[in-house]
Amino acid sequence: MHPKALAMAIGGAAAGLMLAAGTAQAQDTHEWKMVTSWPKNFPGVGQGPERLAKLVDEMSDGRLTIEVFGAGQLVPGFEVFDAVAEGTAEMGHSASYYWKGKAPAAQFFAAVPFGMNAQEMNAWLHYGGGLELWNELYDDFGVDVMAAGASGVQMGGWYNQEIDSVDDLEGLKMRMPGLGGEVMSRMGVAIVNMPGGEIFTSLQSGAIDATEWIGPYNDLAFGLHQAADYYYYPGWHEPTVMFEAIVNEEAMASLPADLQAILRTAVRDVNADVLDEYTARNNDALETLINEHDVELRRLPDDVLAQAKEHSADVVAELAESSEMARKIHDSYRAFQDKVVNYHAISEQAYYNARNPEGAPTSGE
Amino acid sequence: MHPKALAMAIGGAAAGLMLAAGTAQAQDTHEWKMVTSWPKNFPGVGQGPERLAKLVDEMSDGRLTIEVFGAGQLVPGFEVFDAVAEGTAEMGHSASYYWKGKAPAAQFFAAVPFGMNAQEMNAWLHYGGGLELWNELYDDFGVDVMAAGASGVQMGGWYNQEIDSVDDLEGLKMRMPGLGGEVMSRMGVAIVNMPGGEIFTSLQSGAIDATEWIGPYNDLAFGLHQAADYYYYPGWHEPTVMFEAIVNEEAMASLPADLQAILRTAVRDVNADVLDEYTARNNDALETLINEHDVELRRLPDDVLAQAKEHSADVVAELAESSEMARKIHDSYRAFQDKVVNYHAISEQAYYNARNPEGAPTSGE
Repeated sequence: MHPKALAMAIGGAAAGLMLAAGTAQAQDTHEWKMVTSWPKNFPGVGQGPERLAKLVDEMSDGRLTIEVFGAGQLVPGFEVFDAVAEGTAEMGHSASYYWKGKAPAAQFFAAVPFGMNAQEMNAWLHYGGGLELWNELYDDFGVDVMAAGASGVQMGGWYNQEIDSVDDLEGLKMRMPGLGGEVMSRMGVAIVNMPGGEIFTSLQSGAIDATEWIGPYNDLAFGLHQAADYYYYPGWHEPTVMFEAIVNEEAMASLPADLQAILRTAVRDVNADVLDEYTARNNDALETLINEHDVELRRLPDDVLAQAKEHSADVVAELAESSEMARKIHDSYRAFQDKVVNYHAISEQAYYNARNPEGAPTSGE
Repeated sequence: MHPKALAMAIGGAAAGLMLAAGTAQAQDTHEWKMVTSWPKNFPGVGQGPERLAKLVDEMSDGRLTIEVFGAGQLVPGFEVFDAVAEGTAEMGHSASYYWKGKAPAAQFFAAVPFGMNAQEMNAWLHYGGGLELWNELYDDFGVDVMAAGASGVQMGGWYNQEIDSVDDLEGLKMRMPGLGGEVMSRMGVAIVNMPGGEIFTSLQSGAIDATEWIGPYNDLAFGLHQAADYYYYPGWHEPTVMFEAIVNEEAMASLPADLQAILRTAVRDVNADVLDEYTARNNDALETLINEHDVELRRLPDDVLAQAKEHSADVVAELAESSEMARKIHDSYRAFQDKVVNYHAISEQAYYNARNPEGAPTSGE
């Protein structure tokens, strides 16, 4: 072969190699599915998964793409954990209290009545050993977990009548899930469980007398002010909900180190971003509810809060007894909370009270 | 040439191509410098830049590396902004109130007396138009800016004597920078400015009678409890400090889109992570200060807080008059704060008060 022919042959081979390199890169892309427990594009919490997919796509230059599925599109909202554990989807976005049937201790990572708020939960998870315990709990199922959004302190709930004392709760039918519902049931409330989608009609028809949902932003979107007049605060039962991103461990291990880092950092971004969105949007929605819809905003009576606090301590203590792991998580959670309550007493709490000593909204002025 | 020889020649060429590809990739790497206003590896705020560099390195697989310089290592701490604007360093980590000489309105993005706390600032910046205004302000200097960490509500300061009323402030020499210092000076305090490194000796020698610094975590590390007995709360003058990551606009534009996304997301991670660290470490440090060092923890008297609040309103209103841009930023900040104060009155504030009605630390029990 003439040297020039050889050069051309090599040139051709080089072109082939470049094509092969292109193919190899294409083969190195990862197309993931993310199942969620929320309607597709749901305000607030449903925006987190969409943002996550976008960030990962941008940062990885398309090497890792994530298709987001709303509840029921690929699997029902309450089967997100199983789908991820089994590998039906590589990852999911949900809240850990939905998995209390598998592991009661999971509830510590979502919402604890009279427990820690968003800032405190994030500090415990990322600098207090909480995230390690959460992963230890999920490790039995082959699932990695990260914090992926917070609602902030929720509202106490909508009631179709005024609540002046604990006596007024007796016999009320209320929708309140989780540990908070257990506390309310000890105060005479009949707890009714139902998915979010049934709340409005149940409240309007009188099938229930009261409900909690999330906060002004989501509650306004649901139209709950059209079904009940009284809006109570504060949400002692959910000082935040902490949302979770869960990843099938084998799927995570299949990613090269840079894509793992990209995924983890994107989740950490979303974890903060969801709270930022709720904080901003709840403001606006509260003004709309009060000024345009004449919602009657009320603080829960002192005796309701005091009794709820007592029962909450019992309910949480009982949860801690449910397993060795629950005890371990409880002890870590409690030790951190005791300290952060003290510190926030002189920082965040003291500051809120110095800035706004009246402690009540001033809207409408 | 024998086909086998041709194959070997092509193989050799392929190896050459792979080497060339490796070189091309090496040329596509970006080696950046980040100057900061903190001592290298300073607890809390100084950890943010280190974490940022690590995350970017991992996510970019080494294509973007960032060398972190402590204050004075490449440029003095107060020259970080100039160094980034001029391109001496591609990016920096600092706090915007240091640049009030260039743009007084920059102070709105760091700390406003009786202004917004960390959760509220993040909501305003990311969902209330704040970040756009911050970038508009820095655009004249060719600098991009992102929020890059928060301290949380700070402490009110260390005093070498008890403060029972505003009268006790008269004539005190105190170190308190920024808008807070201006407020204190209107209450009879003689404000003395000095860098962090001089605080301890000045307080111990009696050159100053009082100082603010950050919070228990950093204050304990500085040993301030050895120079003053009384530790006052809350830090009305700094409901948080918001730290900033600044990037030379040309340097940012030189990055491909994926590296820009990686950098921005890493900063957002660090923005949350610094607050998580402070929240967790302040807890522990407060316990140590009270239980091991017998620090006298005191709440600032009501009349001090009330007068500080009035003067703060004046000082902030005067700042708003300093330029058209200051007015624009002020109006956005104030509108957002008015709403979020209302919403947090029934959520975060109401919850803190329901959980801990005493509002004082219970340490030492």
